[in-house]
Amino acid sequence: MSTETYRQQFPALADKAYFNYGGQGPMPQAALDAIIQTYQQIQSLGPFSNQTNAWIGEANQKTRACIAQELNVPLTSIALTEDVSVGCNIPLWGRVWQTGERILLTDCEHPSIIAAAQEISRRFGVELDFCPLMATLNQGNPTDAIASAIQPQTRLIVISHIIWNTGQVLPLGEIVQACKAINPSVRILVDAAQSVGSMPLNLTADGVDYYAFTGHKWLCGPEGVGGLYVHPDALEDLHPTFIGWRGIVSDASGSPIGWKPDSRRYEVATSAYPLWMGLQAAIALHQTWGTPQERYQQICHLSTTLWEKLQTLPQVRTLKTTPPTSGLISFQLENQQHPQLVQFLEQQGIFIRTLKNPDCVRACVHYFTLPSELDRLIDGIQAFQ
Amino acid sequence: MSTETYRQQFPALADKAYFNYGGQGPMPQAALDAIIQTYQQIQSLGPFSNQTNAWIGEANQKTRACIAQELNVPLTSIALTEDVSVGCNIPLWGRVWQTGERILLTDCEHPSIIAAAQEISRRFGVELDFCPLMATLNQGNPTDAIASAIQPQTRLIVISHIIWNTGQVLPLGEIVQACKAINPSVRILVDAAQSVGSMPLNLTADGVDYYAFTGHKWLCGPEGVGGLYVHPDALEDLHPTFIGWRGIVSDASGSPIGWKPDSRRYEVATSAYPLWMGLQAAIALHQTWGTPQERYQQICHLSTTLWEKLQTLPQVRTLKTTPPTSGLISFQLENQQHPQLVQFLEQQGIFIRTLKNPDCVRACVHYFTLPSELDRLIDGIQAFQ
Repeated sequence: MSTETYRQQFPALADKAYFNYGGQGPMPQAALDAIIQTYQQIQSLGPFSNQTNAWIGEANQKTRACIAQELNVPLTSIALTEDVSVGCNIPLWGRVWQTGERILLTDCEHPSIIAAAQEISRRFGVELDFCPLMATLNQGNPTDAIASAIQPQTRLIVISHIIWNTGQVLPLGEIVQACKAINPSVRILVDAAQSVGSMPLNLTADGVDYYAFTGHKWLCGPEGVGGLYVHPDALEDLHPTFIGWRGIVSDASGSPIGWKPDSRRYEVATSAYPLWMGLQAAIALHQTWGTPQERYQQICHLSTTLWEKLQTLPQVRTLKTTPPTSGLISFQLENQQHPQLVQFLEQQGIFIRTLKNPDCVRACVHYFTLPSELDRLIDGIQAFQ
Repeated sequence: MSTETYRQQFPALADKAYFNYGGQGPMPQAALDAIIQTYQQIQSLGPFSNQTNAWIGEANQKTRACIAQELNVPLTSIALTEDVSVGCNIPLWGRVWQTGERILLTDCEHPSIIAAAQEISRRFGVELDFCPLMATLNQGNPTDAIASAIQPQTRLIVISHIIWNTGQVLPLGEIVQACKAINPSVRILVDAAQSVGSMPLNLTADGVDYYAFTGHKWLCGPEGVGGLYVHPDALEDLHPTFIGWRGIVSDASGSPIGWKPDSRRYEVATSAYPLWMGLQAAIALHQTWGTPQERYQQICHLSTTLWEKLQTLPQVRTLKTTPPTSGLISFQLENQQHPQLVQFLEQQGIFIRTLKNPDCVRACVHYFTLPSELDRLIDGIQAFQ
C-alpha cells in the first residue's frame, strides 16, 4: 500500500500538510468508527447493567493489554488516565512529602509539570531544582547534567524521554543507571508525551519507575485517553491520590479495604470508555504498517530530510545543529515572527505550532508523512517573507 | 409530544424498562450526533491548530455556561471534570491538612469518597468521623445528625444532596446554615451525583462551598464528563492539586505564574472535548421538556407511584417508609436474593441494580419513565419467586 493510500485512513490529512503530531495526531476513521460503535453498544446493553459492567472490565483489560504490548511492558504495570498531565500528577503527589525534600526537574519540562511541582513545593516545603538540560542539545552530556544535580534530599527526578521543545532524545537507561548509582532510592518519573508512539521502548530494561503518556499524540488515538506505567517494584510505595471506585477493593458491605493489586489502583472512576476502543483501533492500524522500530526508523529518515531542507533556508536556524533522532524539529526565524508564520502557514493548510521556551516553531513528522508535505512546508516558509 | 414519542430520542430505551438512571442515564441520539460531528470538526480543523485551540476555549466556555444555567449558578463557578469522584477529590485534597484536623462524613457516602478520605487520613494524620445519617431516613433529623457531629477540629464536611443508597433528599440550605453557625470556617463538600439533573438547585442560596456532579447520570450525557461547582468565596483557599495547562496562567516565556481566575483552575489538561458537545445536547433536550422544577415534580409523581405499587408486594420492603421525594427507590426482598433478582429482571429487559450497604436493590425513575415500565417492574418482581 502506498503512503498516499495509507493516509486515506486519516480524514484529517486530506489536503493538509500536517506537522502537529506532537500536539495531537490525526485520528484514523477506524478509531472513530470503533468509538461510535461502542457508544451504540453501551446504550444497547444498558447503558448501566450487569452486562455493561462486565464489558467495561473486559474493555479495560484489553485496552491496557494493547498499550502494554505496544510499550513492551507487563499488562499489570499500566493504568489508564485522561492525559499525560494526570499521569505525571499521580507520581508527583503519591508520596508523603517532607519539608526539605527535593524534586529535581530539567529546564525543559512542560508547564503542566512545573506548575504541579511548584504547588507541591508550596504545600509541603519541598525544594525544586532545575538542571540545565537545554544546553546539552548540541554539546555536553545530558546524563551528567541530570546526575550531577542530584542532592542528598532528592527524592524524585522528573525528565522527559523526548524533550517536547527541542526534540532531544534522552538516553533513558543510562540516566536511570547514573541516578540510581548516586541514590538507589530516588524515583524517576518520565514525561513520555512525545515518545510513546514515536519510538521503540524498553522501559523494564531502562529501569524507570513511572512513565506517563497519552494516546492522542503519536498514537493517533482520541483526545482524553492516556496512561501511566508504574514499575512493579515502585507500586507499593506510590499511593493513589485522586481516588475512586476503579482503584479500590471493597468488602462484602461495600467498604473500601485496599487497592487493586496492580496499576489499576491509580485509575479513578467513570471515564469515556468508548474512547478506549478508539485508541485500540489506532494502535492496531500502526501495527499493520510496521513495528515500533520500523516506524521510528521512517520517522527519523523523514525528520532528517526535513532538517536538511531547513538548513538550506538562510532565514531559518534549527535548534538542533545535527540531524534529529526524533520526529520533532524546532527552528527559529531570523525575524522571530513565529506566531505570524504559523498563522500564515495554517491559512494554506500547513500545520505547525509555536513554542514559547525557547521562542521557536516546531514541526513534527510521522512515519506516514509525505515527502511532498515536506516540500509544501519548505515552500511555505520561503513564501513567508 | 407523548412520552412514548419523546423517548424515541433515546436509543437505549427501545424495548427496555429502564431504572438505572442513578448509575448511568440513556444518551439521546442528539448527544451522540453532536459527539460524532465534533470529532469530525476537530479532525477537519486540525486536529491540532490555532483554529482548534480557539474552538476548544469557546467550547469550554459554552459547556460551563450550559451547565451553570441548568444549576442556576455563575459560569465562573464551574470547572469541568471527568466524573463525580474527581470532583470530590479536588476539595478533599485542596487544602494543607494538619495532623489532628478532622473530616466529617456521613455513613451514606460512596466508597470512592470514603477511600479518598481514608488516604488523606493515612497521609496527614487527619481524623475521620462518620455521623449516623442512614438512621434518619424514616425518623429523626438529618440536620441535627450532621451538625451535632461537628467537632472543634472539623475542617470539612462531606455529604450527599440525594443519598445514593436510600434516595433521601437532604435539606441542603438548612444543613449548611446549621453547620456554619457552629463553625463559620468549616467547608461543605456535596456529592451531587444523584441530584444534578434530577431536582431544581439553588446552590448560591444554600451556601455550599463545593458541589461535585456528573453529566452521565440524570443529565443523560456521555460518560466521562462531570463538573465541580466552587463557591466564589471558597476559591482562594482551595488550591488545585492535580494540575495541568488548562488550570494555569503562564508568562510570555511559558512559565506558570498563577491560576486561572475562576474555577477553571481545577481543570487539568487534554480531555475528551467532543463529549462536552454531547452533554450540551442532552441538557438542551431536557430543557425542551420542562424546567428543572417541572421535571422534578414528574419524577416525584412517578417514583411515588412506584413506591405505592411496591407496598402492595408482600415480599418487598421499601427502605423508605413514606413516599419518596427523589427518583431513587431502594427496597429489599424477604428472601434477600438481590443479585439474583437483578439478573432475572435484566434477562427480561428490566434494568435495576444491587447496592451493598444496605444490602438492597435500587430502581430509579426519570421524568420520562412510562407507567407501563412501572408495571413491567412490578410484574417482574412478582414473577421472581
